[in-house]
Amino acid sequence: MFFEGAEKKLEVIVETNSLNLMEVERSFWEEMVSACNASILSEIKNDQAHAYLLSESSLFVWEDRFLMITCGQTNLIESARLFIEKYGRDQIASLIFQRKNEYQSQLQPSSFVEDAKRLQNWVGGIPLRFGKIHSHFNLIFHTDKPYTPTDDDNTTELLMYDICPKCSELLTRPDLTKEEIREFFDLEKLLPGFEIDDFVFKPYGYSLNALKGSDYYTIHVTPQLYAPYVSFETNYKMGVERQKILNHLISVFRPGSFDVVGFNEVDTFEFDEKYLMAVRSHEKNVQGYDIDFRYYYRENKNGDAPTLVSFADEEL
Amino acid sequence: MFFEGAEKKLEVIVETNSLNLMEVERSFWEEMVSACNASILSEIKNDQAHAYLLSESSLFVWEDRFLMITCGQTNLIESARLFIEKYGRDQIASLIFQRKNEYQSQLQPSSFVEDAKRLQNWVGGIPLRFGKIHSHFNLIFHTDKPYTPTDDDNTTELLMYDICPKCSELLTRPDLTKEEIREFFDLEKLLPGFEIDDFVFKPYGYSLNALKGSDYYTIHVTPQLYAPYVSFETNYKMGVERQKILNHLISVFRPGSFDVVGFNEVDTFEFDEKYLMAVRSHEKNVQGYDIDFRYYYRENKNGDAPTLVSFADEEL
Repeated sequence: MFFEGAEKKLEVIVETNSLNLMEVERSFWEEMVSACNASILSEIKNDQAHAYLLSESSLFVWEDRFLMITCGQTNLIESARLFIEKYGRDQIASLIFQRKNEYQSQLQPSSFVEDAKRLQNWVGGIPLRFGKIHSHFNLIFHTDKPYTPTDDDNTTELLMYDICPKCSELLTRPDLTKEEIREFFDLEKLLPGFEIDDFVFKPYGYSLNALKGSDYYTIHVTPQLYAPYVSFETNYKMGVERQKILNHLISVFRPGSFDVVGFNEVDTFEFDEKYLMAVRSHEKNVQGYDIDFRYYYRENKNGDAPTLVSFADEEL
Repeated sequence: MFFEGAEKKLEVIVETNSLNLMEVERSFWEEMVSACNASILSEIKNDQAHAYLLSESSLFVWEDRFLMITCGQTNLIESARLFIEKYGRDQIASLIFQRKNEYQSQLQPSSFVEDAKRLQNWVGGIPLRFGKIHSHFNLIFHTDKPYTPTDDDNTTELLMYDICPKCSELLTRPDLTKEEIREFFDLEKLLPGFEIDDFVFKPYGYSLNALKGSDYYTIHVTPQLYAPYVSFETNYKMGVERQKILNHLISVFRPGSFDVVGFNEVDTFEFDEKYLMAVRSHEKNVQGYDIDFRYYYRENKNGDAPTLVSFADEEL
């Protein structure tokens, strides 16, 4: 059975003089999550942020913003519509909507261009493509308003493809527990002090939300061999730790290829292994953010045998 | 306006004791081309092969086989159906159907899995994927019959993506002539003695068929900046010339990335520029052929600015 791991992402920042999103009722977030055909599984919260684990990825809510990440066949643009209809475009200080190269875009309920056309009608803005259309890319629709992010407003995404077959094997084991998965990640020593909420899906899949004050990280794993994909995202100001944390994840999952997307996180960094940067796209001041997209490949001279295509590969 | 340059490909070899495809009436080929929503524009022929230039790519016919390559939104599987219905599966010694990573698979009339399911019902066979599903790949459905290709039965495909902006600029010039395009390719000195049939499409696009005895080469150019793509294919036994010819084409189009697919053509070769092989897939005895897929990237450390997405990009 095919599952689209590649996520869509929506981040909306509101005008804080008139709206505090932490005070919005839970029933509204339930409605918003349901609008894209997902549901809330569990939540953790502290006085600075709420983190909802969804049937398809995650929703984080702070006073001034929310971040929603959804995978599978979810229709995230419908959640955007609901929020904009309820609060109005004047309440929106910044809206950024992202989609990336999907494994099977023909199975999605809409295309990025369709989504971007709707967003442009609702809030105005600009659709950009970072990366190459024939391979890995990140499509970013952003409002085009004067906006200055705070100094600590940065995001790093690490999107890993083609994780090592042993990882797929381990992560598709039927009786796998959360504890075993977290032990396999071995990440908590590098990102200590976070409260964690995680879920093992049946038959496959794993999601994790982590909160510490206003900092989050989130991991979503689609381990199936047909289209294996693991995403990691954080707003943690990693600084010198950034290289260490990304390298750790790459050494755990040993992906054949990965993308790094930085929002106001564009330091150069080196990877432990023989990964080559095939493509880089970079732009300053995209709705106030310096956005950096990099696509890496591990050179593979020996090659592999082809894969037998299963007729179930496109079934949902 | 978007045009899908990425081709589908069908090669059928027949049992020659009972069928000579060179004697099949032109009206049948017209019908077969029309079945996938293409049409014949012109033709060249000699005593060993006929070459038809199509509104979407090419059809070549020899005594024992035909090769059909179609791009855009054509439904090549319908041409396969027509041929199989007319001549029956027992007349087919070998059938190979290929599709590759498309720029916009959601705009195609069918998916590879749908096509392969139908082929499996009609003639039996095996669907394989060469390359990685998250990036460049070649999907190959092949019959699984005892078949031994002759010694001179070999094919090389060179699929070039992201050709240099100056090439796009030149090849989208409104008043461009065939002669200027062939001069730009500067290929005839390397492949001398071929009879050539070519066509400049409006507003954009160029196709070329070339014949010399039973040898062919064919070039199809989709120069539009949004999704530039150039394919070259030949059965010419290039031998030591292979490296020279492929390198020449790469030096002309300067693609950001290219794939090389070989059928019984798996020599190693070196490219002039800093192209790195990101992925290789290789299998022996696929319906008698040794198939080799390689995906190359030019490393790009400096990066580019993102591309503004036009809302017309998905329109046909």
